[in-house]
Amino acid sequence: MSESEIDAIRALLGSKPRPVGWAARRQRLDEVGAVWPVAADVTLEAANAGGPPGEFSLAPGSDRSRVLLYFHGGGYCSGSIVSHRRMVTEAGRACGVRTLAVGYRLAPENPFPAALDDALAAWRVLRAGGYPAGRIMVGGDSAGGGLTLALMQRLREAGEPPPAFAWLVSPWTDLTMSGDTLASRDTVDPLIHKAYLEELAEAYVPAGTDRRNPLISPLFADLHGLPPLLIQVGSEETLLSDAVRLAEAAGAARVAVTLEVWPHMIHAWPLWNARLAAAREALASLGAFARMHA
Amino acid sequence: MSESEIDAIRALLGSKPRPVGWAARRQRLDEVGAVWPVAADVTLEAANAGGPPGEFSLAPGSDRSRVLLYFHGGGYCSGSIVSHRRMVTEAGRACGVRTLAVGYRLAPENPFPAALDDALAAWRVLRAGGYPAGRIMVGGDSAGGGLTLALMQRLREAGEPPPAFAWLVSPWTDLTMSGDTLASRDTVDPLIHKAYLEELAEAYVPAGTDRRNPLISPLFADLHGLPPLLIQVGSEETLLSDAVRLAEAAGAARVAVTLEVWPHMIHAWPLWNARLAAAREALASLGAFARMHA
Repeated sequence: MSESEIDAIRALLGSKPRPVGWAARRQRLDEVGAVWPVAADVTLEAANAGGPPGEFSLAPGSDRSRVLLYFHGGGYCSGSIVSHRRMVTEAGRACGVRTLAVGYRLAPENPFPAALDDALAAWRVLRAGGYPAGRIMVGGDSAGGGLTLALMQRLREAGEPPPAFAWLVSPWTDLTMSGDTLASRDTVDPLIHKAYLEELAEAYVPAGTDRRNPLISPLFADLHGLPPLLIQVGSEETLLSDAVRLAEAAGAARVAVTLEVWPHMIHAWPLWNARLAAAREALASLGAFARMHA
Repeated sequence: MSESEIDAIRALLGSKPRPVGWAARRQRLDEVGAVWPVAADVTLEAANAGGPPGEFSLAPGSDRSRVLLYFHGGGYCSGSIVSHRRMVTEAGRACGVRTLAVGYRLAPENPFPAALDDALAAWRVLRAGGYPAGRIMVGGDSAGGGLTLALMQRLREAGEPPPAFAWLVSPWTDLTMSGDTLASRDTVDPLIHKAYLEELAEAYVPAGTDRRNPLISPLFADLHGLPPLLIQVGSEETLLSDAVRLAEAAGAARVAVTLEVWPHMIHAWPLWNARLAAAREALASLGAFARMHA
């Protein structure tokens, strides 16, 4: 059904190959993400209550008293509020809530745990601003999914209540790169390959730190006590195993898990919701999940 | 939340341990399943248009023009229209459709492929009765989930259109018993243990037939072309791996998959919907899935 649409997205991505160098990569992701701008009816507002750089959004009719705290992907080394603006704002519309996108610090300039510290700081800004934990949902794609899982571990360790639920799109959960699909989907995934992931992990994880650290590779975390998880992943992804293994581990830890595998979809496809029915449908499924869990 | 409820179900099951002998086992499953009878407002009607024994149900307000074709669990050796009546009829109510429960032939008297032949015959009765394939949803728990997957393979091989979607509760997908959780959940699962599964497989699979036959162990099937799957499994199940591995295999085969892992739940827990909120919630999730896919 949406195969011709996803082929068009593949063509767009193929026409803008990932360059060498962090600055160039960041610029390219911002440009690709901004090909389809934010919808005209969405209100954007810079966050200015301390914490890392952030941007609130609100779609008409959404409920300001609930908020989706969002962490963009980009391998901990690229991605921004700009690159993911269309995805985050439409996710907020689908859930009927406000969103807060976080511009956390990036590696290699700021390796682990800088991004996690910023994620926690953003959470605290929301809490201090009057949001009860249960009125906050958290989410992220790719590295932002990993960051979401790390944040929830931090909250649990601090004895703080968890968010209402977490939304993880194509999450990168294993920086040891032990998943089967890294090899088996290598030729069909247009974006994520093992050599690139190695480069990112090298940049994010400080020398001497174990990549199996559960705040770095949440697949190896004790996941008990986490709130419900909605995990969405595409069938064409090298990171399919990262999602499936997370679902199994979280389920075995007695977390309520919903895993959706979307046929023909590629890494973080809800980014392309302006042109891709399956992206809008994935956001609609998120919205249905939010109505059941938040 | 529902832990005290599931503990009460565990106590009920513990008070009626599984006996030795097929006749006694069948009687016990019918008795346990009938502890909570069908709701008073559901209309039951024997199927009499040929095919295997069957029973239609209709809850007030449901749509007669759509039907859930259901295959009960019981390891291919026990279970019946009676044992699963409460589960099937409430699933129909949740989906807002008619149901047809099938009394397929059981092993060891009738080994593979008798049950599958009956499943296909029941499908053909519905089709001959005027139901387009897209107005039929199919489902089953445990062995009934495996049977559902086998039926869809048969339909694909015959060049027939698939059902709208399939609903698989705690499906038994691997009669070679190679799943990790057979060992890791052995002490928490009150119902399903490897020695029992071996006994069932011995009874169902004819001597000389490979248990990896994809119509017997659909985990090893080519799953391409199947309709969307909703897979529901409990966190306490030895068959957790059978569900997770099926989700991964079907997703990789570009089937639309939703896997739900339900914390604290046991094998085929929607059976106990009269007393278990998580059973009713699982059926509500099925209903939401049906509204999106049928």
